[in-house]
Amino acid sequence: RSGEMAKLTQLIDNEVFRAYATYTTIVLLKMMLMSLVTAYFRITRKAFVNPEDVASFGKGESAKKYLRTDQDVERVRRGHLNDLENIVPFVGIGLVYALSGPELSTALLHFRIFTGARILHTFAYLIPLPQPGRGLSWAVGYAVTISMAYKVLKTALYL
Amino acid sequence: RSGEMAKLTQLIDNEVFRAYATYTTIVLLKMMLMSLVTAYFRITRKAFVNPEDVASFGKGESAKKYLRTDQDVERVRRGHLNDLENIVPFVGIGLVYALSGPELSTALLHFRIFTGARILHTFAYLIPLPQPGRGLSWAVGYAVTISMAYKVLKTALYL
Amino acid sequence: RSGEMAKLTQLIDNEVFRAYATYTTIVLLKMMLMSLVTAYFRITRKAFVNPEDVASFGKGESAKKYLRTDQDVERVRRGHLNDLENIVPFVGIGLVYALSGPELSTALLHFRIFTGARILHTFAYLIPLPQPGRGLSWAVGYAVTISMAYKVLKTALYL
Repeated sequence: RSGEMAKLTQLIDNEVFRAYATYTTIVLLKMMLMSLVTAYFRITRKAFVNPEDVASFGKGESAKKYLRTDQDVERVRRGHLNDLENIVPFVGIGLVYALSGPELSTALLHFRIFTGARILHTFAYLIPLPQPGRGLSWAVGYAVTISMAYKVLKTALYL
Repeated sequence: RSGEMAKLTQLIDNEVFRAYATYTTIVLLKMMLMSLVTAYFRITRKAFVNPEDVASFGKGESAKKYLRTDQDVERVRRGHLNDLENIVPFVGIGLVYALSGPELSTALLHFRIFTGARILHTFAYLIPLPQPGRGLSWAVGYAVTISMAYKVLKTALYL
Repeated sequence: RSGEMAKLTQLIDNEVFRAYATYTTIVLLKMMLMSLVTAYFRITRKAFVNPEDVASFGKGESAKKYLRTDQDVERVRRGHLNDLENIVPFVGIGLVYALSGPELSTALLHFRIFTGARILHTFAYLIPLPQPGRGLSWAVGYAVTISMAYKVLKTALYL
């Protein structure tokens, strides 16, 4: 058993895998932050979806008026969904990329640019910045993921 | 080649990794169940989105009336999206956490609490339970994921 | 350090893991394609959500009319969300399945059928094909994921 443990320790001691672990964790934490931002706007804008969420505001019509959509809430939710659509491919393709034996410096470049691009994307969406700010930050993260996918398919293709 | 196989077998034989494999599978199966619940409510409430889904109900207006939103369907869909938003971070951060060499008992505690919290969250959403039932179960799962992320960044940080 | 690298190389040299890496990458790239299809329909149908996205069309009412939903855009978005709901379980369960020591031929069968089913599902959604085309392609991918989950729980269960 100590031999197995040693092997797992070696995986996490590998620098590329550690970098993957670090940036995947950061970018998933950033995505999780969107839940808190949504909750913040729901509470400050008093805009909820579920009847049970407004029960503490009173009964009947006095509470029902808070069952409504708010444009700030919807904006955060769109940002959150965009995170899911783009961070899921990064996490999945990034894992097999990290295990496909890339150069450490190349891998770090991919992980850092993706993470930076997604953080910029969130600011561009929430502030909001004029286009093409959000579009460009989205495209950079997208291109990084495509580049990792290309490396995986070039190295590991087994159809 | 038998050497490689042995190594992979060792990875799955590692108890922390087996626990990760087990709970990740359970929690993803639970998420997949939401698709069936959505389908069940769409069929019993006759509430569909796509014109081709109601074609068997007849032509023209007699079928179009089933292209509508239903509050029970929408409730399940919100629960499903909430699963995606919270289970994706668990699966991604949980993997690198499991490979970062945690104590077996600590890892099990994280995986069990998360899985229990998400199952409770689903019941709280679908029954629905009065708040803060759903909010608390959400927060417990969120906190478990943050705790795993903290361990990963403390153990493996490589920026 | 060269010893660690060798071990990682062995993981990616394992044929089941290479197959997992290949099909996960393909199916995630297919999912990413939905973003481009959405953008294509948003631009050709002139149907946007964010005010900053239509700023280049002019000021005031002349631009606001493009802040609208379009049924083709919404259709692609539903397909994209369905991908998330189904491909996330495949990627997560597929990883632990690939590491649970399945026969290469069995693993390839699972990965190929899932990938084919999801590509068919996309065509069925976007063309759209009459039902049960979309429903069946969804069900096949779902069943493949359940089958992998069963193998994982049978091989690695650690509660």
